[in-house]
Amino acid sequence: MAPHAPDAGWSLADLAARSGADLRGDGAVRVMRVATLERAAPGSIAFLDNRKYAPLLDATRASAVIVTHEDARRTPLPALVTATPYLVYARVASLLHPAPAQAAGVHPTAAVDPSATFADGVSIGPHASIAAGVVLAERVSIGAGCAIGRDVLIGARSRLDARVVVYDRCVIGADVLVCAGAVIGADGFGLAEDQGRWLRVPQLGRVVVGDRVEIGANTTIDRGAIDDTVIGDDVKLDNQIQIGHNCVIGEGTAIAGCVGIAGSTRIGKRCRIGGAAMISGHLSIPDGTTLGGATVVMSTIDEPGAYSGSFPVLKYAAWRRTAARLRQLDRLAERVAALERALAAGAAGET
Amino acid sequence: MAPHAPDAGWSLADLAARSGADLRGDGAVRVMRVATLERAAPGSIAFLDNRKYAPLLDATRASAVIVTHEDARRTPLPALVTATPYLVYARVASLLHPAPAQAAGVHPTAAVDPSATFADGVSIGPHASIAAGVVLAERVSIGAGCAIGRDVLIGARSRLDARVVVYDRCVIGADVLVCAGAVIGADGFGLAEDQGRWLRVPQLGRVVVGDRVEIGANTTIDRGAIDDTVIGDDVKLDNQIQIGHNCVIGEGTAIAGCVGIAGSTRIGKRCRIGGAAMISGHLSIPDGTTLGGATVVMSTIDEPGAYSGSFPVLKYAAWRRTAARLRQLDRLAERVAALERALAAGAAGET
Amino acid sequence: MAPHAPDAGWSLADLAARSGADLRGDGAVRVMRVATLERAAPGSIAFLDNRKYAPLLDATRASAVIVTHEDARRTPLPALVTATPYLVYARVASLLHPAPAQAAGVHPTAAVDPSATFADGVSIGPHASIAAGVVLAERVSIGAGCAIGRDVLIGARSRLDARVVVYDRCVIGADVLVCAGAVIGADGFGLAEDQGRWLRVPQLGRVVVGDRVEIGANTTIDRGAIDDTVIGDDVKLDNQIQIGHNCVIGEGTAIAGCVGIAGSTRIGKRCRIGGAAMISGHLSIPDGTTLGGATVVMSTIDEPGAYSGSFPVLKYAAWRRTAARLRQLDRLAERVAALERALAAGAAGET
Repeated sequence: MAPHAPDAGWSLADLAARSGADLRGDGAVRVMRVATLERAAPGSIAFLDNRKYAPLLDATRASAVIVTHEDARRTPLPALVTATPYLVYARVASLLHPAPAQAAGVHPTAAVDPSATFADGVSIGPHASIAAGVVLAERVSIGAGCAIGRDVLIGARSRLDARVVVYDRCVIGADVLVCAGAVIGADGFGLAEDQGRWLRVPQLGRVVVGDRVEIGANTTIDRGAIDDTVIGDDVKLDNQIQIGHNCVIGEGTAIAGCVGIAGSTRIGKRCRIGGAAMISGHLSIPDGTTLGGATVVMSTIDEPGAYSGSFPVLKYAAWRRTAARLRQLDRLAERVAALERALAAGAAGET
Repeated sequence: MAPHAPDAGWSLADLAARSGADLRGDGAVRVMRVATLERAAPGSIAFLDNRKYAPLLDATRASAVIVTHEDARRTPLPALVTATPYLVYARVASLLHPAPAQAAGVHPTAAVDPSATFADGVSIGPHASIAAGVVLAERVSIGAGCAIGRDVLIGARSRLDARVVVYDRCVIGADVLVCAGAVIGADGFGLAEDQGRWLRVPQLGRVVVGDRVEIGANTTIDRGAIDDTVIGDDVKLDNQIQIGHNCVIGEGTAIAGCVGIAGSTRIGKRCRIGGAAMISGHLSIPDGTTLGGATVVMSTIDEPGAYSGSFPVLKYAAWRRTAARLRQLDRLAERVAALERALAAGAAGET
Repeated sequence: MAPHAPDAGWSLADLAARSGADLRGDGAVRVMRVATLERAAPGSIAFLDNRKYAPLLDATRASAVIVTHEDARRTPLPALVTATPYLVYARVASLLHPAPAQAAGVHPTAAVDPSATFADGVSIGPHASIAAGVVLAERVSIGAGCAIGRDVLIGARSRLDARVVVYDRCVIGADVLVCAGAVIGADGFGLAEDQGRWLRVPQLGRVVVGDRVEIGANTTIDRGAIDDTVIGDDVKLDNQIQIGHNCVIGEGTAIAGCVGIAGSTRIGKRCRIGGAAMISGHLSIPDGTTLGGATVVMSTIDEPGAYSGSFPVLKYAAWRRTAARLRQLDRLAERVAALERALAAGAAGET
């Protein structure tokens, strides 16, 4: 393959080879950047995956497109053709726009305990604090203002953005991304009642985060009470998620923003949890479950599948009436049963 | 107008002139501070807007009140009389309690890249970090521990409170307020499936925030995947809101706390979104829409208006029965249809 | 009682005496740590409280257990016997695993205003900033990167973890725990409409937090608009809770994660609010109320008791049908009423 010349972009032929797509048309066309179909300028490559945007294919000014075999017939543009345009787009975008590497080194304003140990290529941003016993593997990047507690271990190439907090003794795997403001390992919500007063229960476990995990901005994951809270490999967590103490999230599960999971709940592998779903504590959800947005789960789900449970949106006046009727639903069902009995008795009487 | 003497407070006549209200009674009365009707001491001015608090008007010890014409007849106190007491209160409170100006200058513990450029009157708090290429317009105030990424632009007089993170290349307008802990421009939640594994999709867009925007504490706004996430002028966002990549929020829209908006959704202008509403991705909501608290929106709303959709609160035992009935609602509707058929057949039989 | 030798653990007899439990079996048995029944190794003490885990009692390798009198008959292990195993566990865990004391002193990277006053034993972490007029009582611990505003008062032995923000003039009691990322005292969401534009309403009150309060990670509590926002003694707040301006939370109330409470709402004493409950503004909830998870409260609750209001989870296809039926619920109720009238008329006709 021809050497990569960033300023000159990539040839479509090279992108096809590197992204696993088929080339259709002129492989010598060069593209410099990705763009949306709608806003692409010449020199850009765009993609079509969501059918909703199909009408934009005709008018795009992109120099090349990433499309399915079916859509390829609908455009004369040079194309990367694939059964999975979004995946090929992701690869192409990574080639055209590689993430800038953090320069290795410790910013002079960082506070690093002398007992912390760093492998090669570690980068520590301004005002980060690294406590005693911390171990950072090669090319770990710690952003501005992060606070890394005692004896924390962070695996190779993991990147913590600004102002992430990792409490004492937590473990983070390799190739992890933690976005700004996330808090990993705060005390779980453990309270025992003592003659009408709350007594704090020591939170002694850790948070153990696997490899290739993503943790969104301002997401919080509490440390375990006795055993650990465990986030499996390849788990993807969006922003503002709350995960209680001693939860176990199975490998490859993706959770959208604003989800809350109460303590000691086990989420299976390869689940997909919609935004703002709320899951109670001490229950389990099997591998491969899909939960719709804003669904509330109060007890264990035994069977994998797709579940939902949100109230439909209504015009305000209709909602008022519907909510009032819903409050009477038990009575309504009894009235229907009474009607059935009356009709059956009437029918019996007629016989 | 008489010059303003802060220590001596303001005369009611001056406040009337500056706030656009009518003066009723002794304009020479001086007030030093605002207070609630309930807790006002002499020297205070209180207001009555929410009818719920009307009974407090009689017993208040305030030296003056801000009231409607109707309520003015119910009190002998000197008054600012207006059709909009809350608005006049807001103006009066700003006059009596002006926000303390931040002293210009860079705190010695801040880490400022030499390529950053500051206009006059910029204030940088302790432990703030300002990366390369940042441009701060006049009188921008950056709070303690903020992390401002490369090439960020911030407009005049904008104030970032403590520990705000703004990622690389984001743009913030003038007269913006960002409360503590907000994260602007973290990577959106973009994942492509690659033979059962998740591949991260580069997030290449920015967040562009208009003028006079407010962003609440610990609110998160993700950067766009390709194009930008856009927050229009005069948008007001409360605390702990999550806005996904490529959302567009129209001018003047106000969103209460704990709302989540998934990626690529467009919210119109002058909407009012109640607290904890959850809005799915890739949909749109028209200008002027009102959404009730905790409403879940799963598809595009075509018609402006007021919408709701929360489950009514019930005593626990009633809720258990109602939820069980709700699970049988489809069957109940079929039973009603069967009754209708039976009755129609019976009636037909009787004829 | 024998002196406490940490390295050698505690004797069961000493733990019984200190935790208020009855000793059953060999009081000389020594335990070094707590563990779960499932994972205990010799030298550990485990507890059984939740009946769900009762089957694990037989196979545990713990050296001793904390159990009810009833469960004590089911195991031959040395035991602490009590009516409240979880409470005794909490005491035992605190004895075996005392929280490490923060070393007193000010980290050299902290920025402390000379007018701040500290009592004995105060600990200030790296990159913390302490503004003018702050008063910290004895043994207060301020974590890395905290930003403490002007004239803040913090009571004895309170511990703020990393990156907590406390705005100007707020008051925090004694023995309080604030977890990382919490924001106390940001401006409330106060907006007045001014000819189609939003005018910011000054937020002049404070947040006043009582003694023994816990505030979870990334939780936000807004300052009052005029009067204060008040968090009573012994209130326990989990992570990512949002409390609006001028709320009053009564003593001893415990609130689980992701709850939102809009402005000016009063929550009584000793309430228990389930995760993700959402409570509107300007209402009140009486002492001793229990709210189920994800319950939405839109108006005042007059009577104490247990309330719920979440939509039941359903298989996706069933949910689609149920939601469609729910939209027609008002019509369905009318149809049932029509059937009742028809049947009554028919019955009347038959007479």
